[in-house]
Amino acid sequence: MAAEQLNQSECNRSRVMRFLYNNGVSSRAQIAKSLGLTPAAITKITAKLIDEGLISETGEIEGARNRRSIGLRLDPERFHFIGVKFARSLIQVGLFDLAGNAQRIWVDMTADHPSIGDAITSLKTLIGQIMARFSTVVAIGMAVPGPYLRDCGHTAVVSSMQQWRDVNFPAEFADAFAVPVFIEQDARAGALAQQLFGDDGARDDLAYYLIGEGVGLGVVERGRTIDGARGTATEIGHVSIDVNGRRCDCGNYGCLERYCSAVAIHKALDEDGGIVADSDTMTHIEACEALFALAADGDARALELVRHIGTYVGYGLITIINAFNPRRIIIGDIVSHAGEPLLASAMRVVDDRVLPELAATTSVTLSDLPTDAAVTGAAAVAITAFLEQPSRFADIARRRRGD
Amino acid sequence: MAAEQLNQSECNRSRVMRFLYNNGVSSRAQIAKSLGLTPAAITKITAKLIDEGLISETGEIEGARNRRSIGLRLDPERFHFIGVKFARSLIQVGLFDLAGNAQRIWVDMTADHPSIGDAITSLKTLIGQIMARFSTVVAIGMAVPGPYLRDCGHTAVVSSMQQWRDVNFPAEFADAFAVPVFIEQDARAGALAQQLFGDDGARDDLAYYLIGEGVGLGVVERGRTIDGARGTATEIGHVSIDVNGRRCDCGNYGCLERYCSAVAIHKALDEDGGIVADSDTMTHIEACEALFALAADGDARALELVRHIGTYVGYGLITIINAFNPRRIIIGDIVSHAGEPLLASAMRVVDDRVLPELAATTSVTLSDLPTDAAVTGAAAVAITAFLEQPSRFADIARRRRGD
Ligand SMILES: [Zn+2]
Ligand SMILES: [Zn+2]
Repeated sequence: MAAEQLNQSECNRSRVMRFLYNNGVSSRAQIAKSLGLTPAAITKITAKLIDEGLISETGEIEGARNRRSIGLRLDPERFHFIGVKFARSLIQVGLFDLAGNAQRIWVDMTADHPSIGDAITSLKTLIGQIMARFSTVVAIGMAVPGPYLRDCGHTAVVSSMQQWRDVNFPAEFADAFAVPVFIEQDARAGALAQQLFGDDGARDDLAYYLIGEGVGLGVVERGRTIDGARGTATEIGHVSIDVNGRRCDCGNYGCLERYCSAVAIHKALDEDGGIVADSDTMTHIEACEALFALAADGDARALELVRHIGTYVGYGLITIINAFNPRRIIIGDIVSHAGEPLLASAMRVVDDRVLPELAATTSVTLSDLPTDAAVTGAAAVAITAFLEQPSRFADIARRRRGD
Repeated sequence: MAAEQLNQSECNRSRVMRFLYNNGVSSRAQIAKSLGLTPAAITKITAKLIDEGLISETGEIEGARNRRSIGLRLDPERFHFIGVKFARSLIQVGLFDLAGNAQRIWVDMTADHPSIGDAITSLKTLIGQIMARFSTVVAIGMAVPGPYLRDCGHTAVVSSMQQWRDVNFPAEFADAFAVPVFIEQDARAGALAQQLFGDDGARDDLAYYLIGEGVGLGVVERGRTIDGARGTATEIGHVSIDVNGRRCDCGNYGCLERYCSAVAIHKALDEDGGIVADSDTMTHIEACEALFALAADGDARALELVRHIGTYVGYGLITIINAFNPRRIIIGDIVSHAGEPLLASAMRVVDDRVLPELAATTSVTLSDLPTDAAVTGAAAVAITAFLEQPSRFADIARRRRGD
C-alpha cells in the first residue's frame, strides 16, 4: 500500500512536471487549476520538486486579475539525455537537453567495424566518454528497428538490420552504464519525439510514419503509445498491401516495406541502372538522396520513380487512417526527404481511396524536426521516462553529481 | 477544482466497483490492498457505495491469516441494461443484468417495416415498453456497424447498412428515453463484451474480430479500447489486402470486407448456384448458415468454399497481429458459425505468414459467448459506462424507482 501511495504522489509530481514542460513558466495557481489539485497539494508537490532540484522559482509573473505571483519553471539545461539510434548501416548517438535540442551528434558506420561485437564495444566506449564529460546525463534512450520483442529483448524480423538479430539489447545495455537505459521500437520513439517536441496541436493523437531502411509506425492515442501485448503493435511495414505480393523476411507476402523502404528504392535503382549512375556502389541513403536530388532538379525519370514510390507511401497512409484514425500523420526518415512530389503523389491516393470525412480531418505532413529526428526519438524515450518518474531521476542526478 | 476532486472520488468508486465486478465478494481489506487505498479511503468509498445502493454487505468471509471479515458484493440483478444491435437486415434488442446475462431478446426484421423511419418508431416503442416494465433499467447501449463517426453521429460507409446512412443516431436516440444512451461501433462493443463477460485471461489485451454482414474489429489495449481521433480506428474491414483488388463502397480497393463478410459469401453462393440451392431467395444469414450446415455434413464443395473464406479470415488475422499485437483474438458473429474448418484454414495462413514468436503467443478462438453475443456487446457499452460512473447511475436508478 505504501508503494502504491508513493506512486500516487510520484504520479502527481509527474503531472506537474508535464504541465511545466508543455506550458513553460507558470504559477502554482495556474498549475493547480489545470490539474485539479488543492492548494495544499500543489504546495507540497512543488516544494518537493524544488527541493529535488527539478524545478525552480522565477521572479514574479502576471497572474489572474492582475495579481502577481511567483513563477515556477523547469530548467531544460539542467538534465541531459543520450539518444542512440540503431539502423542497418549506422549508429547515431546524440546528447540532448530536456527540450530535445541536440547538443552534439556522433555517427558510427557499422561497416567500419569488423563485427557487431566490435561495434557494440565501440558504442559503449563512446557513451562512457560522453557520460564522463557530462555529469548531467541521467538517462539513455535507444531506438531499434521493429518488430522489437520487448519481453525477450531482441529485434524480430530485421529485414533492415539482419546482423543485429542475435543481440539481446537489454542484456547488452541495461546495466552497462550508471544511468537507466530505455529501449523502444524506432518509429514509436519517433512518435514520442513528435508528441514532446513537435508542432503544437494533436500532440495526443498522432502517428509517426517512419520510412527509412525499414518502414515503421508509432501511434500516440489519447496521449499514450499503442504498444501491443509484446510491444510489436503498429508494425505497418509488415502489414500486407497485396496478399499475393512480394515475399518478406517476416514470412508475410506483400509487406508495405517491400515497396517503399530505402532498401526497396535502392533495389529498384540498381535494377534500372539508368536513373542514378553507379547506384550499386552507394549506400541505401546515398542512393535515395541521389534519386531525390535528380527529381528535385526536374529529371523526368527520377520524378516518375519518386511519384511511383509516393503511391505506395499513400497505400500505407490509407491503412494507417483506417486502422488507427490519428488526427495527424507525420512522415519522417530517409524517404521523407523526397519532399513535395512524394507527398503530393501519396495524397492523391488518400483523396481517391479514403472516406472523405476522414481524409478531411487527417493532416499529413513531412517531419519538421531537424535532420537528426531519428536519434531525437531515442532521446524522447528517455525524456518520457524522466517526466514519468521525476523523483527517481532527481536521485540519479544527485548520485551522478556526487552529492 | 471541485469538479476535478469529485471526479477523483468517482474514479476511486469506479475502481472499487470494477474490482468487485471482476473478483466477486471481497473484504474491504482485500480491495484496499489491491487498489492501494488507505483504510480511511476504503471506508469512505464503500460507505457511499452502500448508501447509494450500488453494493451491499454479505455475511462474514474468510480473510487473510484466518481472520474473518465482512464481505462486500455487487448485486448483478439490481441494475438492468438494454442493448440494441443494428445490422443491415435486423435490429436486436436485449434486456441484460449487470453480469451480461440476457433476460430476454427481441428481434425486429427491418424488412418488415416500410421505411427506416417506421423501424425507428417501432424500436422506440419497444424500448419504451421494456423500460416501463423494468424500472431497474438505468442505461441503454447501442451497437452500430462501423465506421461510425462519433462526433457527427452517423455511420460512414455502411456497405452493410446502406439505408441507415442518413440516420443521426445521437439526435434520434440520445434524449429519447429517461436514461442515457451510449452508441458504439459494433465490433468495439463486442470487444467490451469479451473484456467484461468473456473467458478469464488477457481481458486487457484482446481483439474482437467481427465477421458478419460487415467485417469489423474492436481492440482493447491495456484495458482501454483503441478509438482513434474520430472514433473510426480499428476498421479492419476497410484495410486493403490487395491494393489492386475489388472496389469497395468506402472508396478503397481490396478491402477485407469484400472477401469474407456474410454479404461476400452470399454473393459467391449466388454466382455459383450449385452449392446452396436457391441461395438467391435467402437472407445473408440464411445463405451462410445453409453453407456451413452443408460443410459440417461433409459436402466437399461447401467445405472447399468454407476453407477458401477461412484463408481470407486468416489474412485479416495477420493484419490484426501486425497492427495491434493483441494477446487474444476472438472471432465472432455470423461467419464464426462455420466453426473448426474455417478456423483451421485461417490458422494455416497465420502459421505460414506471421513471425513464429508472435504466432506462438497470440491465441485465436471462436467466440464462446452465446448466440446473442452481438447484442451483448451493445449491453457491454452501457455496463462499461455504469462501472465508470457508478454514482451517476445510482442517481438515475433512484429517479427511475421514484425515490
Ligand atoms: Zn514483412
Ligand atoms: Zn472499404
